[in-house]
Amino acid sequence: MQPITGSGVAKIVDSGNPAFEVGDLVYGMTGWEEYSLINNPQGLFKIHHTDVPLSYYTGILGMPGLTAYDGFYELCSPKKGEYVFVSAAAGAVGQLVGQFAKLMGCYVVGSAGSKEKVDLLKSKFGFDNAFNYKEEHDLNAALKRYFPQGIDIYFENVGGKTLDAVLLNMRVRGRIAVCGMISQYNLDPPDGVTNLMHIVYSRVRIEGFAVSDYVDQYSKFLDFMLPHIREGKIVYIEDIAEGLEKGPSALVGLFGGHNVGKQVLLVARE
Amino acid sequence: MQPITGSGVAKIVDSGNPAFEVGDLVYGMTGWEEYSLINNPQGLFKIHHTDVPLSYYTGILGMPGLTAYDGFYELCSPKKGEYVFVSAAAGAVGQLVGQFAKLMGCYVVGSAGSKEKVDLLKSKFGFDNAFNYKEEHDLNAALKRYFPQGIDIYFENVGGKTLDAVLLNMRVRGRIAVCGMISQYNLDPPDGVTNLMHIVYSRVRIEGFAVSDYVDQYSKFLDFMLPHIREGKIVYIEDIAEGLEKGPSALVGLFGGHNVGKQVLLVARE
Repeated sequence: MQPITGSGVAKIVDSGNPAFEVGDLVYGMTGWEEYSLINNPQGLFKIHHTDVPLSYYTGILGMPGLTAYDGFYELCSPKKGEYVFVSAAAGAVGQLVGQFAKLMGCYVVGSAGSKEKVDLLKSKFGFDNAFNYKEEHDLNAALKRYFPQGIDIYFENVGGKTLDAVLLNMRVRGRIAVCGMISQYNLDPPDGVTNLMHIVYSRVRIEGFAVSDYVDQYSKFLDFMLPHIREGKIVYIEDIAEGLEKGPSALVGLFGGHNVGKQVLLVARE
Repeated sequence: MQPITGSGVAKIVDSGNPAFEVGDLVYGMTGWEEYSLINNPQGLFKIHHTDVPLSYYTGILGMPGLTAYDGFYELCSPKKGEYVFVSAAAGAVGQLVGQFAKLMGCYVVGSAGSKEKVDLLKSKFGFDNAFNYKEEHDLNAALKRYFPQGIDIYFENVGGKTLDAVLLNMRVRGRIAVCGMISQYNLDPPDGVTNLMHIVYSRVRIEGFAVSDYVDQYSKFLDFMLPHIREGKIVYIEDIAEGLEKGPSALVGLFGGHNVGKQVLLVARE
């Protein structure tokens, strides 16, 4: 049986490939297991900078980081002073998007599913404001409260009712980068979105993307991120579950929003 | 009371503006009336080419033509050999988009609401195929029949259930230009669109637009269109209602799909 795979960090203990030597630290797709046999080294990258936590290469310095970077800078075409909304804002990608938006001089508001996460967004990640979507029975009214001028950029992680309310509040030539729709994956049928006419009214662009289309930008991304992390200008939170046996409950917890920050499963320390 | 306005063709019978002389033919926003007082001449353009029917300036050579041109060439980024679907394909904009797609070397299928329109799409406008959406109880199955390889470009004029079925059939990096959603304007609530997750799965771009953002491209557009019309490489169909009193029923007829081609109201002959 194939193991479940995920974005992992590992140390090479044996290698038949001259590009990887015993002792090298790497990140990429690994199995949920103590030892992995990797036959497809194209998906494996050497770690050259170890002055940051190695787990960062599963998140802020890995695919979630690159996702936030390309989704925001490439798809959203942000400009200083624009109004940015991020859903699932306390997640691995959302927390970065909000910080990128602040670095760009935007006004940014995030939504999340608990008071703890909302507090983090404001106190730790520098969001201008944040709200708990579970406490808002009228999302349209909530967005109008936080964005009286409307929304230029929406970084979409959840879909469904949130997207429907956002559409009512998009400014002319607004942009929506669709990173995910986590509220919808387990719904059958998914929520019906009724306000798509606003795509025409406000000439909105909605675009889905996959980080796999941007891997050639990784070194540019790393050059941007490392100094910001070292200088504390970009911060990051992980939710570390320790022990392989915690994997299933940590995975299921994602869909209930139990994690605060990037969910990491610690299998073994170096 | 303000008259209803629309895209019209008129002759100047009096002018206090040196840019317009008595006898000039113009097109632009005019009233539904025999004589119009135009105080806002920025929206008025002189007609310099009269070897084509003057009514064309309300359609193929006016805003609908520019809409089709920019929507297709700018927003859809078409490439030779791509698969193109056009809804409301027999309308003023749709019939042009299909012909542009054929000029580009694409495969193009249109949907319309009557056998007469479907026949026109195939016999007159050169669509590779066409179908009557009213006869398809399963739009997803219909699209899979006409697009076994999927859809690269969808030119959206109708919204609702058609959009929902199209989303299931978009190819990776497909593009949807949203020109209008005529099936939805009079629905309360509008249809819920449930397949938006495919924006992520297939990295689809959806973009709304307004021709008013592209008026600076008008002369380039005219240079492209006139030779194609003169050489018969682009054809055009109008549905002319004669007499100002026919205006209301012609307008209402649009929402029931009664028109075949661009609906024109003939108020007076030159």
